[in-house]
Amino acid sequence: MLVGAGPGAADLLTMRAARALGEADLVLYDALVSREVLDLAPQAHRFLVGKRAGKPSMAQSTIHALMIRAARAGRTVVRLKCGDPFVLGRGGEEVLALEEAGVDVEVVPGLSSATAGPADSGIPVTHRGLAPGFLVLSAVPSDHYRRVLATLEPGSVTVVLMMSLGARAEIADFCVAHGWPSSLPASIVIDATLPSAWTWCGTLGELADVEIPERDGERGLVVLGPVVSLANENRRKEHEPWPMDRAR
Amino acid sequence: MLVGAGPGAADLLTMRAARALGEADLVLYDALVSREVLDLAPQAHRFLVGKRAGKPSMAQSTIHALMIRAARAGRTVVRLKCGDPFVLGRGGEEVLALEEAGVDVEVVPGLSSATAGPADSGIPVTHRGLAPGFLVLSAVPSDHYRRVLATLEPGSVTVVLMMSLGARAEIADFCVAHGWPSSLPASIVIDATLPSAWTWCGTLGELADVEIPERDGERGLVVLGPVVSLANENRRKEHEPWPMDRAR
Repeated sequence: MLVGAGPGAADLLTMRAARALGEADLVLYDALVSREVLDLAPQAHRFLVGKRAGKPSMAQSTIHALMIRAARAGRTVVRLKCGDPFVLGRGGEEVLALEEAGVDVEVVPGLSSATAGPADSGIPVTHRGLAPGFLVLSAVPSDHYRRVLATLEPGSVTVVLMMSLGARAEIADFCVAHGWPSSLPASIVIDATLPSAWTWCGTLGELADVEIPERDGERGLVVLGPVVSLANENRRKEHEPWPMDRAR
Repeated sequence: MLVGAGPGAADLLTMRAARALGEADLVLYDALVSREVLDLAPQAHRFLVGKRAGKPSMAQSTIHALMIRAARAGRTVVRLKCGDPFVLGRGGEEVLALEEAGVDVEVVPGLSSATAGPADSGIPVTHRGLAPGFLVLSAVPSDHYRRVLATLEPGSVTVVLMMSLGARAEIADFCVAHGWPSSLPASIVIDATLPSAWTWCGTLGELADVEIPERDGERGLVVLGPVVSLANENRRKEHEPWPMDRAR
């Protein structure tokens, strides 16, 4: 079973995910799954298989083999993935590998930090007059997000860039070089929904130089768009919402 | 408290949302919130405030006034919104209205059908080699989605169009007129995660003519992109994944 662990806080798991964890024999979890989420499966053997920034990681094929072997041995396996298994989580690849091996697989969706991360800082990814929709991309590899952002009208939708802390300078440079206004509101959200949550709000022009706290992992994301003007931090300053036509 | 009701199935609420419902005095809910979700608040007075397709609906300002009055009267109010309050749910507007009235508000995120809907049919919104990201838009009003899709490279990211059943012909016409290949995989997902779930998979060229079952409401969405080739329905047919370069 592929289960979404949500953005961080244990009570932001779905009830279905919590039940699956409570019934598991074996939990194969990603590096960024929080301790309090793992504590929902105290009875299970829990095994870290995920990638951790800057450290050797298990090959995707090894993760597939582990899952297949455990399922064939009759174990109740939960593959626990950060956020949602199908949002930049390679869940689709794991489903295909399991099915190819003749193993039945169920997917339990989870709350992605792509939306729950900004929300935790008061930022709605859509808002009437500011953003009619949102776009989610990974900052890694950079040629993917560049290809998409190169054609997008700046500020026309909220852009959420996952796994992007280390790439924030190159993201800012790329967007400004492609005509995005340096005054566009921008935010960095790290460890959303956890006690260690940290947020910065500013502009695209300031993004490259933000000093962020040292963290173990890649839990951070960058939000670009007028909706950042609605963040808790900005509302407390009684800023006016950023007018959408400044983005055009 | 603004609470996301998730995509439909009651056990896809977060544990935090379920607890909020269990503690509420008053639940103000959207028309498309499922009966089994409302049953999580049997002790509460439950009041339908949402919009229902083709029927007179309560003005947004009336919803704000109801929430403010109840909160000031000391009631524990849950404003229960389909999916996630901040994903095309006007949750941002409700937060601003409550804060302006001096009412504290907490937002409990929910699983949006923008990702959980496709997932329920086996479609991952991202997949290596098929889609490096995804874009979520409402089909209403049409000038918003048209403005964004007009610039997007066809097939470069998965496009999820919410509230789009009635607009499927105009979406297909617009995309094809803007150079999207009529062979691009497309899907319609209705009532995802509920017993009444219904899915169609085909191509953009076929989208306009799909006959869909009559439903009360606007729970349906359209998915456009190569990832539709991974849907359960398509995998069972042992189709090859749709090659991404056909979209370019």
